[in-house]
Amino acid sequence: MAGDGRIKQVIVVDASLGLPPGKLAAQAAHAAVIGFLTAPAPLQRGWLQSGMAKIVLACDSPDELARIAAAADASGLPTGLVRDAGRTVLEPGTATCVGIGPAEADAIDEITGALPLLR
Amino acid sequence: MAGDGRIKQVIVVDASLGLPPGKLAAQAAHAAVIGFLTAPAPLQRGWLQSGMAKIVLACDSPDELARIAAAADASGLPTGLVRDAGRTVLEPGTATCVGIGPAEADAIDEITGALPLLR
Repeated sequence: MAGDGRIKQVIVVDASLGLPPGKLAAQAAHAAVIGFLTAPAPLQRGWLQSGMAKIVLACDSPDELARIAAAADASGLPTGLVRDAGRTVLEPGTATCVGIGPAEADAIDEITGALPLLR
Repeated sequence: MAGDGRIKQVIVVDASLGLPPGKLAAQAAHAAVIGFLTAPAPLQRGWLQSGMAKIVLACDSPDELARIAAAADASGLPTGLVRDAGRTVLEPGTATCVGIGPAEADAIDEITGALPLLR
């Protein structure tokens, strides 16, 4: 599919975990940084120069999060799956969210286009 | 004060805004990336190599957030103040959070050491 060149980053959170706000914020921040560092330099530059568009979406189970992360990675998208160290709220190693991109918006939408915004 | 060399990143959120979870996650992610990009390369490397420690704290007013961001910047810490584009939940330009670091933990604690974790 021909894209329009827009570059964005999507963070998909497993909403079934019911993360408390501070934990949610930290995990999403982690995903954003890992996604950024995983992206090739032209996508990094394009994203920074175009305002760092970032969208946080929700999925509803660990299985769905794992499936989305695997699909993104298999598509060659910058993909950063975040696992919690598990010292407080979660079991150690629980996957909480995945950062996808910065990458072309259309390519990310093929993986995440059906997911709702995290509310 | 002599530090022990630990490097971390702190994100301070204005909890008085009562950001909904998706907005909170996106703003914190933005702060984390800006803080990272603002840091000098040795701190970036040191943070990445030591596990990217990240802590999310709360302050309780716009004035306090502005004061903390100004103090961090004046101390020479990597500082990324995030303002919301304001298309949905907030007034345009509302400051939501600030990313401080990656930097030496002791130096950040001099600015943020009295703040509670965001719950």
